[in-house]
Amino acid sequence: MKYVIIGGVAGGMSAATRLRRLNEDAEIIVLERGPYVSFANCGLPYFIGGVIKERSKLLVQTAEKLYQRFRLDVRPENEVTHIDRKLKKVIINHHGKTYEETYDVLILSTGAHPMRPPIEGIDQADNLFTLRDVPDAEGIVQYLQQHKADRAVIVGAGFIGIEMAENLAERGLKVTIVEREHQVLPPLDPEMAIMIEAELKKHNIEVLKGKTVTSFEKKGAVLVLDDGTRKQTDLTLLSVGVVPESSLADHAGLALGIRRSISVNDQLQTSDPNIYAIGDAIEVAQTVGGRAAVIPLASPANRQGRMVADILSGMKRSYKGTLGTSIVKVFDWSAAVTGLSEKLLQRFNIPYEALHTSPPDHATYYPGSSQMTLKLLFDPETGKILGAQAVGEKGIDKTIDILATAIHGQMTVNDLTALELAYAPPFSSAKAPINLIGYAAENVMDGNVQNSQWNEVDQLVKQGAMLIDVRTEQEYGSGTIQGAVNIPLDDLRERVSEIPKDRDLIVTCQVGLRGYLAARILAQKGYSVKNLDGGYKLYKSVFAKKYSN
Amino acid sequence: MKYVIIGGVAGGMSAATRLRRLNEDAEIIVLERGPYVSFANCGLPYFIGGVIKERSKLLVQTAEKLYQRFRLDVRPENEVTHIDRKLKKVIINHHGKTYEETYDVLILSTGAHPMRPPIEGIDQADNLFTLRDVPDAEGIVQYLQQHKADRAVIVGAGFIGIEMAENLAERGLKVTIVEREHQVLPPLDPEMAIMIEAELKKHNIEVLKGKTVTSFEKKGAVLVLDDGTRKQTDLTLLSVGVVPESSLADHAGLALGIRRSISVNDQLQTSDPNIYAIGDAIEVAQTVGGRAAVIPLASPANRQGRMVADILSGMKRSYKGTLGTSIVKVFDWSAAVTGLSEKLLQRFNIPYEALHTSPPDHATYYPGSSQMTLKLLFDPETGKILGAQAVGEKGIDKTIDILATAIHGQMTVNDLTALELAYAPPFSSAKAPINLIGYAAENVMDGNVQNSQWNEVDQLVKQGAMLIDVRTEQEYGSGTIQGAVNIPLDDLRERVSEIPKDRDLIVTCQVGLRGYLAARILAQKGYSVKNLDGGYKLYKSVFAKKYSN
Repeated sequence: MKYVIIGGVAGGMSAATRLRRLNEDAEIIVLERGPYVSFANCGLPYFIGGVIKERSKLLVQTAEKLYQRFRLDVRPENEVTHIDRKLKKVIINHHGKTYEETYDVLILSTGAHPMRPPIEGIDQADNLFTLRDVPDAEGIVQYLQQHKADRAVIVGAGFIGIEMAENLAERGLKVTIVEREHQVLPPLDPEMAIMIEAELKKHNIEVLKGKTVTSFEKKGAVLVLDDGTRKQTDLTLLSVGVVPESSLADHAGLALGIRRSISVNDQLQTSDPNIYAIGDAIEVAQTVGGRAAVIPLASPANRQGRMVADILSGMKRSYKGTLGTSIVKVFDWSAAVTGLSEKLLQRFNIPYEALHTSPPDHATYYPGSSQMTLKLLFDPETGKILGAQAVGEKGIDKTIDILATAIHGQMTVNDLTALELAYAPPFSSAKAPINLIGYAAENVMDGNVQNSQWNEVDQLVKQGAMLIDVRTEQEYGSGTIQGAVNIPLDDLRERVSEIPKDRDLIVTCQVGLRGYLAARILAQKGYSVKNLDGGYKLYKSVFAKKYSN
Repeated sequence: MKYVIIGGVAGGMSAATRLRRLNEDAEIIVLERGPYVSFANCGLPYFIGGVIKERSKLLVQTAEKLYQRFRLDVRPENEVTHIDRKLKKVIINHHGKTYEETYDVLILSTGAHPMRPPIEGIDQADNLFTLRDVPDAEGIVQYLQQHKADRAVIVGAGFIGIEMAENLAERGLKVTIVEREHQVLPPLDPEMAIMIEAELKKHNIEVLKGKTVTSFEKKGAVLVLDDGTRKQTDLTLLSVGVVPESSLADHAGLALGIRRSISVNDQLQTSDPNIYAIGDAIEVAQTVGGRAAVIPLASPANRQGRMVADILSGMKRSYKGTLGTSIVKVFDWSAAVTGLSEKLLQRFNIPYEALHTSPPDHATYYPGSSQMTLKLLFDPETGKILGAQAVGEKGIDKTIDILATAIHGQMTVNDLTALELAYAPPFSSAKAPINLIGYAAENVMDGNVQNSQWNEVDQLVKQGAMLIDVRTEQEYGSGTIQGAVNIPLDDLRERVSEIPKDRDLIVTCQVGLRGYLAARILAQKGYSVKNLDGGYKLYKSVFAKKYSN
């Protein structure tokens, strides 16, 4: 059997090595357009930032080593220019020379390339970069070594944009981020992303939201934004998303999916039964909700690479979908997401309930604990978990990994209450963050409490609801939500007669816990009451400006 | 409704506060024998070690605060001496005075007390301590302040023993641990525990295994062990396990379970329908395998406390069992376990397969990664996960939490391969440790590889198997398993003719990965071959002595 794989990174190389492990006698050829195979693409921003000091660390494998160990015929700088499906062969360009290679099975692992919008002056900008591979990273490092660069602009505040902002700042550049949406990190919901924005600003990164670049002037030395702002820049990184690299597949007449991705079935097989496709180039189903999506992430790509080798070796496997679990380090913080965001649930018209909690990562009586913000999205009927987001300094990866596992297992919020997680004071609390948000969700499902959200409270107050801040007098005095009256929780039972029976109530505290207790007391006394989910802390982090004016 | 709760820590207080949140009008009385309620018992070793500096940090709540916020009638230093089931009342001793309190429902949260074996001279030992509550901890701190204590002996190397060893060492004492079993941390399997023993020794803690104390001499200043060793000690901590505090229940004629624990049904109800029991005192079913057990852990106790309140408030809940997830910090390392150990699987005659891997906690090309050792136990027929253990410096809590979640979800090793966990270089690898051990387990189930275990290889070699070390010449030269010949993996295909076809083969490498590749090559060439699971690294960590002699 002769396998030809186009693309020698992540999925492609996973497929190749697994094919060899399962089939000692197969012929396996890997054709890679670029000079390197199997490099650590997720490490590129940290190489540019100097965190990863040696370029060699990024180069996981070489063609020679892959031959020695796996008898793979790996050919860097060999670009496939055409697929001849009828004759089952590919046409390859190597340093200007053309040759062909037949295949029994062809695997496309062509990846995705950075989007490059047709902005005025973009082709004249000589300080403009995108980041996809080692030569891109080397180009940026070389540019920084050869030019006195003081100011950088990152266009696009997604994961790579944020990582590059941090790394360029660590190199001493004054960094500005320009993002089209009204928040950084668009995969997260805005009230979560705003905490990451605060961390960026704390490290002197300028964040311009809701703005786009309309032209590059002076060979890219000046960026003009849609509001007329002109930004001087010594280096600009364009990180506004990636496009599936599907031109070969398209020209070969293979079926394409959304956003020109390559369409595959659950066997990772394209519309041609002899051609398979994996990685950033393909269309996948979202694990939650099942909608078609393009989700360019390293873990799914690696998983698909291995799986296609299994399938081709006769094992029973099927690709069930991609959850979209991601994480990004942002200086001392991190932000992570799994499943669908609230924005997507709204867009897809999927019923959901949202919850925010602010648990410490470990028992507060043990030194060094840090409060995270955790958001859970679940089906209000079944309790099934639909998505989660977490931001904070510690335990973010752990928290999201547990929730990603729970979503994979089709678990409900009731399961979260029953999870028995590792507890000792340095690591967690006897009621772990995951248990606590499960309890909170269970309370919502059981009708023990009704919540109002950070973006609903002002409207409810306008409509006549009475807002009661149940924190202490001191906390209330140092800042509260406009219009809130103060009745500390511990005085509530004595002072309940002060509260009119005929008004809708909203109670709030710092993070939502005391508010919940107050809501329970008031509901049992016959009041119509909602608790402000996430409390004053979440509200304030979103509307900080309103209060700093 | 009048609820009386015996025991005001963990489960008892969870039950009380949840009962109040659900029933504003109920009468709720909490009777606590000791002076403090709701204290942070898991923090006690760290208070003794000075990591937690203020005693107040341990005292989460007071009777006064619990009245203010929850209208709980909390009575410290009120010891129930008798339960009168017929008249539904309890007899209480408060500072020598006796009174009674009727109940509609009684909840027993009586906990467990440290075991105190009838060792010769134990009652004369005046430097002997156990650790269960705040007065115990204060007693130890006071003793250390008032006496010049240089040497401490910890009897029992369970979680508390290990935590106390670390904390006393941090206070500057020379610590010796005496453990009856032939390993520290008996909940773990020996080949995992031995790495924790090494960490203890690295911090100058003496570890005496397979030894018991036979007498206390000179008022406890000298411990005599069963091998005749005499240990001088200025302070001895007895931490040889706990006993369910079931005497009240027993005298009241309630049904008892194993180890004199209180028997309850899945509604946490004792044999008297008006009496419920929770926490360390009760018998539970193990989540894996369903056997009866006593599992004194904080998280299940808290969960049971909340659940009993839910059940009493008419909610549909049932307690499904306890998984036994635990973790302990040991200086720079940690060790964690969930589900059943290999020892227990053997004792229960449950079929299993064991696997060991040594993945880095995050991508090795990003600074600061650290290799952990991960053990997975699974059903070889169904692939269902039965248990897991992890030891190492980083990511231990995360790894075990994901696996505990997977066990809760009744997942198989195939699920582990499909988990989509949060990846960026500072946090994990594109193939996460969990995915990798899932792949390894899948290979075993699919028959792609046969493993031999660390404790089988010597025997197999004696029986005539040929042992091939496939690491590099240099690695081989710096230490290998007795009898191994060296054929580096990358030379294996060329040198395969050197290997006799008629011998059983075992291949080994550093951690098992290259061995697996070698096993695949050799199996496909017709050899009968096993890979040494965990590789030379695991083998050496167990048999270090053998090689240091």
